[in-house]
Amino acid sequence: MSLSTALLTDRYELTMLDAALRDGTAHRRCVFELFGRRLSGGRRFGVVAGTGRLLSLLRDFRFGDDELRFLRDGRVVDAATLAFLEGYRFTGSITGYREGELYFPGSPLLTIEGTFAEAVVLETLALSVLNHDSAVATAAARMSVAAGDRPLAEMGSRRAGESSAVAAARAAYIAGFGATSNLEAGRRWGIPTMGTAAHSWTLLHDTEEDAFRAQIAALGIDTTLLVDTYDIRTGVDTAIRVAGTGLGGVRIDSGDLPTVAAQVREQLDGLGATATRITVTSDLDEHAIAALAASPVDAYGVGTSVVTGSGTPTAGMVYKLVARQDAAGGWVGVAKASTDKASKGGRKAAFRTLEAGTATSELIVVSDGFEELETAAAHPDARSLQVALVVEGEVDAAHEGPTGVAAARAHHLRVREELPVKALALSRSDPAIPTVYVDAGPGR
Amino acid sequence: MSLSTALLTDRYELTMLDAALRDGTAHRRCVFELFGRRLSGGRRFGVVAGTGRLLSLLRDFRFGDDELRFLRDGRVVDAATLAFLEGYRFTGSITGYREGELYFPGSPLLTIEGTFAEAVVLETLALSVLNHDSAVATAAARMSVAAGDRPLAEMGSRRAGESSAVAAARAAYIAGFGATSNLEAGRRWGIPTMGTAAHSWTLLHDTEEDAFRAQIAALGIDTTLLVDTYDIRTGVDTAIRVAGTGLGGVRIDSGDLPTVAAQVREQLDGLGATATRITVTSDLDEHAIAALAASPVDAYGVGTSVVTGSGTPTAGMVYKLVARQDAAGGWVGVAKASTDKASKGGRKAAFRTLEAGTATSELIVVSDGFEELETAAAHPDARSLQVALVVEGEVDAAHEGPTGVAAARAHHLRVREELPVKALALSRSDPAIPTVYVDAGPGR
Repeated sequence: MSLSTALLTDRYELTMLDAALRDGTAHRRCVFELFGRRLSGGRRFGVVAGTGRLLSLLRDFRFGDDELRFLRDGRVVDAATLAFLEGYRFTGSITGYREGELYFPGSPLLTIEGTFAEAVVLETLALSVLNHDSAVATAAARMSVAAGDRPLAEMGSRRAGESSAVAAARAAYIAGFGATSNLEAGRRWGIPTMGTAAHSWTLLHDTEEDAFRAQIAALGIDTTLLVDTYDIRTGVDTAIRVAGTGLGGVRIDSGDLPTVAAQVREQLDGLGATATRITVTSDLDEHAIAALAASPVDAYGVGTSVVTGSGTPTAGMVYKLVARQDAAGGWVGVAKASTDKASKGGRKAAFRTLEAGTATSELIVVSDGFEELETAAAHPDARSLQVALVVEGEVDAAHEGPTGVAAARAHHLRVREELPVKALALSRSDPAIPTVYVDAGPGR
Repeated sequence: MSLSTALLTDRYELTMLDAALRDGTAHRRCVFELFGRRLSGGRRFGVVAGTGRLLSLLRDFRFGDDELRFLRDGRVVDAATLAFLEGYRFTGSITGYREGELYFPGSPLLTIEGTFAEAVVLETLALSVLNHDSAVATAAARMSVAAGDRPLAEMGSRRAGESSAVAAARAAYIAGFGATSNLEAGRRWGIPTMGTAAHSWTLLHDTEEDAFRAQIAALGIDTTLLVDTYDIRTGVDTAIRVAGTGLGGVRIDSGDLPTVAAQVREQLDGLGATATRITVTSDLDEHAIAALAASPVDAYGVGTSVVTGSGTPTAGMVYKLVARQDAAGGWVGVAKASTDKASKGGRKAAFRTLEAGTATSELIVVSDGFEELETAAAHPDARSLQVALVVEGEVDAAHEGPTGVAAARAHHLRVREELPVKALALSRSDPAIPTVYVDAGPGR
């Protein structure tokens, strides 16, 4: 099995490359931009995720013998294009929002600069990674806000494709979750893992008591016992009888959670297990979490809703050519003109304006040209949002691996503090801050 | 990078294994079942997909040095469990629905038989694969029904995680799509790939005419030109002027499609390009496809909605222990009793009853025991739904690879003919046929 990521690509990118190599436009320098036209699902803010993963996948975006053979045998491209792909390596530059950063409609999340040939082929991979991971991170951030100080664990691997599950665990952690059930996410990204037992554990044993005794023998009394296999009230009684009042926690995975949580808390307290924690895990989303704010719940486990973006499984971002050289080498800003999918041409510099530490707008300075857009000085209260991710083909490794994940999580939790209060409501709405475009004037 | 799939697993499976090895229950023989309690999203039928992928991933479900080191360093399990995992290989048996088969609530899509130890650890991987792939296949089948004889292409890779995108292309193909944009799906599964040009192709050139001329020079006049970058009417005029009336097709990716398709057809016919096809690709789902049935559209390209399951991104299947040996070696049917998540214990044999070739029920024969459930003879018009997928650890390779995909697609298109007419409506409803449980009596 090849580890190349080069064929995680829509065929039309290679078809365009093939035609562009023939007519000479393949070598025109171009600026592509990855952005969202809107915040899908009526979200008030978005959370960028996937950037670090994309950079690592970019390192493996090479066409080896297996990839070239498939393209040749399938007559996808001609011999000249095969020769180009054989030597392919992205030598351009990518700037973008830090992973974990907030974003709004039009935010230039990635700006890819290079020849048409080298930049066009990255469209599908870049969108796949950022659309999936950002959708999960955006949903996760809403859950994290709703949960407040109570810990949140991601446990939705079974409800996502087996590789996307690992990426989802990573995105949720960046957006404020504290742990995941997914072991591969623990290995690959250094995310804390958690989990004790499923219903099958109780059903495997002749009695619930046998199951609890065996779990405590293996994991100690600080473990969490799943008490709803047969009858919750009996389960809680049995749990405390077996473990004593020092039992770490009980988990409830069914029923009307506000009612059940209150009953279980009362029962535990009555048995003297006042420090035993209650974890709930049944079909939670950000709305259910918010509805449990006044209930005696100590921790949440979230599955389906976080890994599927809580109703918005993709962030809906696009990858568009926004500027290119013309035949004479001058720069031209370009954009599709269709009324319902219009976009804004030109290269962009992005800033978040702040007043007393609270975000007030997404300020995007647009230039038809290619000069450096050093306008931050004109906005003393604005925070510059773009950093260098790839410089002339060299990936900045600081964004990759567990280090990148930890940095992204810290960055997210820090910048989330800048959101205005209205951004934290869960109902559908317009973006919490407006996107403001400013013209930088004609390019050089 | 390890190719092992063993850590695509929720931590609690290994925690249970660890505890079960201590108390001896790890070696009890068990029957786990993978099924859906309901058809998510108000679907009238489900389509099984992912089975062939799962079987290949099962071959790589081994714990190598890297996996064991992570589990040891993270203290996930103890030394005895590490020793067990080092030699792990699934030696049990799996029967299940053929890939591409229809399913209904309670259909036993996979039945996994083995020791608790070897079967419990497959829960997450099996669910990840079948939940994702079946959600996509189910949505795709509805689109395929809505499209009738018009060709459908899957082009949603950019709206799904980069690996799930490949699986989604595969699932859509099994459920009736004819092609995909995803090159990796072409390479790995032998699915036809398609694609010509994006808006960036037109924007790269100084004029739309330059772009069309270059595309035709590279791909010939049978290609499809994207005509909506600036103005559709002008785009169509330019396309026919450049290509002549023999142009293969035009693609429209924006606007009110019924209106625009009619206008473009009239324009093409007026220009003499009566055989030029119209492909539409803008935010289509099964409802939009159905609404275009009377429009002069020749082919559909579907992105976001198919890869995200058209509102139902996961099939919501579960993996439950349904029967096990007790301490004395006798078989016991088991099931969780919670009122809102009750399931039916016991081993199951599944049949689809038919009348004059039309499905009338999902007949599930339940046994507490472990005997062969040979009840097909009692239902002469019933089709047996389960086949052997793994026999004592040996995977049946016929279900894997491109061969398995082709077989699954053929099977799906064949059995879809058995659906009653009411199953083909797109609105939310109860399942098209009832699930009927029959008791086979006590086990031996």
